[in-house]
Amino acid sequence: MKTKGYSEILREDASPIWERIFEHPFLVEMAEGRLPLDKFRFYVKQDYAYLIEFARCLGLAAAKANDMDTMKALSSLLVASLTVEMEMLERLCEKIDVPPSQLREEEPAPTNVAYIKHLLHVAYSGTVGEIMAAMLPCMWSYQEIGERMEGVAEHPVYSEWSATYRSKEYADLVDWFRKITDKCASGSGESMKERMRSHFNLSSRYEYMFWDMAYRREGWPV
Amino acid sequence: MKTKGYSEILREDASPIWERIFEHPFLVEMAEGRLPLDKFRFYVKQDYAYLIEFARCLGLAAAKANDMDTMKALSSLLVASLTVEMEMLERLCEKIDVPPSQLREEEPAPTNVAYIKHLLHVAYSGTVGEIMAAMLPCMWSYQEIGERMEGVAEHPVYSEWSATYRSKEYADLVDWFRKITDKCASGSGESMKERMRSHFNLSSRYEYMFWDMAYRREGWPV
Amino acid sequence: MKTKGYSEILREDASPIWERIFEHPFLVEMAEGRLPLDKFRFYVKQDYAYLIEFARCLGLAAAKANDMDTMKALSSLLVASLTVEMEMLERLCEKIDVPPSQLREEEPAPTNVAYIKHLLHVAYSGTVGEIMAAMLPCMWSYQEIGERMEGVAEHPVYSEWSATYRSKEYADLVDWFRKITDKCASGSGESMKERMRSHFNLSSRYEYMFWDMAYRREGWPV
Amino acid sequence: MKTKGYSEILREDASPIWERIFEHPFLVEMAEGRLPLDKFRFYVKQDYAYLIEFARCLGLAAAKANDMDTMKALSSLLVASLTVEMEMLERLCEKIDVPPSQLREEEPAPTNVAYIKHLLHVAYSGTVGEIMAAMLPCMWSYQEIGERMEGVAEHPVYSEWSATYRSKEYADLVDWFRKITDKCASGSGESMKERMRSHFNLSSRYEYMFWDMAYRREGWPV
Repeated sequence: MKTKGYSEILREDASPIWERIFEHPFLVEMAEGRLPLDKFRFYVKQDYAYLIEFARCLGLAAAKANDMDTMKALSSLLVASLTVEMEMLERLCEKIDVPPSQLREEEPAPTNVAYIKHLLHVAYSGTVGEIMAAMLPCMWSYQEIGERMEGVAEHPVYSEWSATYRSKEYADLVDWFRKITDKCASGSGESMKERMRSHFNLSSRYEYMFWDMAYRREGWPV
Repeated sequence: MKTKGYSEILREDASPIWERIFEHPFLVEMAEGRLPLDKFRFYVKQDYAYLIEFARCLGLAAAKANDMDTMKALSSLLVASLTVEMEMLERLCEKIDVPPSQLREEEPAPTNVAYIKHLLHVAYSGTVGEIMAAMLPCMWSYQEIGERMEGVAEHPVYSEWSATYRSKEYADLVDWFRKITDKCASGSGESMKERMRSHFNLSSRYEYMFWDMAYRREGWPV
Repeated sequence: MKTKGYSEILREDASPIWERIFEHPFLVEMAEGRLPLDKFRFYVKQDYAYLIEFARCLGLAAAKANDMDTMKALSSLLVASLTVEMEMLERLCEKIDVPPSQLREEEPAPTNVAYIKHLLHVAYSGTVGEIMAAMLPCMWSYQEIGERMEGVAEHPVYSEWSATYRSKEYADLVDWFRKITDKCASGSGESMKERMRSHFNLSSRYEYMFWDMAYRREGWPV
Repeated sequence: MKTKGYSEILREDASPIWERIFEHPFLVEMAEGRLPLDKFRFYVKQDYAYLIEFARCLGLAAAKANDMDTMKALSSLLVASLTVEMEMLERLCEKIDVPPSQLREEEPAPTNVAYIKHLLHVAYSGTVGEIMAAMLPCMWSYQEIGERMEGVAEHPVYSEWSATYRSKEYADLVDWFRKITDKCASGSGESMKERMRSHFNLSSRYEYMFWDMAYRREGWPV
């Protein structure tokens, strides 16, 4: 019998938060094809700003990697984030009439800033294991969201978006991320695993809050 | 005629945000002695958690200081934060029936976490000038709040609290912080000054949001 | 008339050190095709270990870059360092009978460790401008070395090695590195430029010491 | 029976290097009161420069500490390093006719820079456990040196110097440092302990090389 990897334990532990994610009106309405396009536009612009900072964390993770193979994989992922993924969002934006300039100059909303600062803080102060654990909820929950949206209402934009995250390539990426997380955890003591859990949970919370931010088109109170 | 230090420019630039701080119901009601004690209890516990992380930033700033005198001053401030300031909060807590254990185990609310992560991110990734600019709004706005509360309604707890921040010692501390900020800015180019301004503004926003968090006794949505 | 970029000023400032590099017996004997192969073997193995840590610095620089284009360029360079450049060294090693396992497990010599730690320290604590200035002497001096070796004694290994560094691709890379350095410097104040100069000079010193380390096949005294 | 703390294991592991330290002519001649004063002068000036950077590492360690007590202790030690310890060196310098200005402006020699960069790199990139392991050889070997010099030849300067490091206060400090190291290690997995060992060994090597640097009055080759 296979022992559970630590990523699986983290996922189970955060399960109540993840259920709330999947039930969030943003995703429910998206699956039913009835999410107002303006909420999606807000989301895409915020996601674009998020992705740039996410890429910075990959650079820091690559710098801290314990072996050459992990360094190489994280570096490739960094390049892919800044090219393939961002171009996907740029193409999507053309479809929904968001001009590229607007995409690039969007001010991050409070929840986005908080999430980003959390990831960057862990990336600067933590070990590779901690960075992986902090970044994993974003990667992984999108895969589950993509899979859950399979076969639901057709929508010219939302269907394409969700298909990206249930592709074989994306699944492989998540698997690899989980493997690195598992490997880092298996060589770690309890206090490090506790830190990883804490980062994973906080990022899971932020994933929920990110969808909520987009649904509310959150602005700064001041 | 004396040239304006950069801290003064930053303060003027953030003036609309600071006005909103001074007008926030938490501070208005506090000055009038009618803020419900439970909101203040919430605030003190959050401030205690904040202070520990603020101290970490001082450690990082000391590590990055350009000269011995700045290192020494930041180190002394670090020790003072962890002793004098935290003990002041502990004494205050006795008065309002918050047991020390509760003080120490309080979970930081979302806005607190966001603010803390911002400071830590700047402390890890930025220069001393950037760290000073990010920490200054907390230090400085408390001085102004303390001064504005002079001579207002007497209150067994709030009056003592506000007196701390209009003391000569506290004013000297803020002056010193501003001087370091000015000095760092005067040796910096435009892009660095722009970063400092951006950190100062974000921290000013968080100051407002921190009072609001306490007023609403903010909790995690998930 | 074009103003001098800061990289040019740095290069002129470090000129006495660079002259000593070009005159070092390792490079003189290499150009004349009479450098004992064992010294070159030692060098290549050390350079391989160095390159991995150099790549870490590129990851950190990408994380700290001010704009998307710089992030993208640094990320691509990071991937290239870990693939193209290391594979070039691996191929070279086959030619001179250094088995891949030996290449990977070589313990870095004292000067190599000192140089690497310097680059990593700047990469963690400094700005992008500082990182660029610290990394530039390695990139740039190799280009000059490559060019100076054009048309000298033919050698089955050394000629190929030096040709790499006078290629058009390599020259473009150095130009780009210099442009980023110039750009960072032009937006910086005097104290930041002074830090950049100090890093550039220390790295130049280490470049000289690196060749000397290889020539002496330096070991640990204890 | 008490289990061995990890610091004890590290100490045993590095024992061959430490023996070489104790046998180094610098220390042997010092114990016999016949070390040329100029070598000692060189050493003190280098040690002063080292101490400032050592203090930076304490600031970083305080910032990364897992609990309040460790933060407080590291902060106090940081202040003590910048005041008590440096003033001790300043007083010592008066005795041996090294003017304070010379003390402050001494350029660090190559081995000093390499050692400092190693400590700072670990302090920026590593966990508290790693930082403690990297800093411990300096703290601890000085205690053993102080103790070994008890009752040897009287010397107006060397006797006072060595007495500092066999004081009760200094021993308590080393004990505390070891306890933190032990505690960090006991909560860590094998890979983290391996990193700690590697840092401890490298710092031990640098301790030997530091004495040797002073004995040779090492300069930059270029």
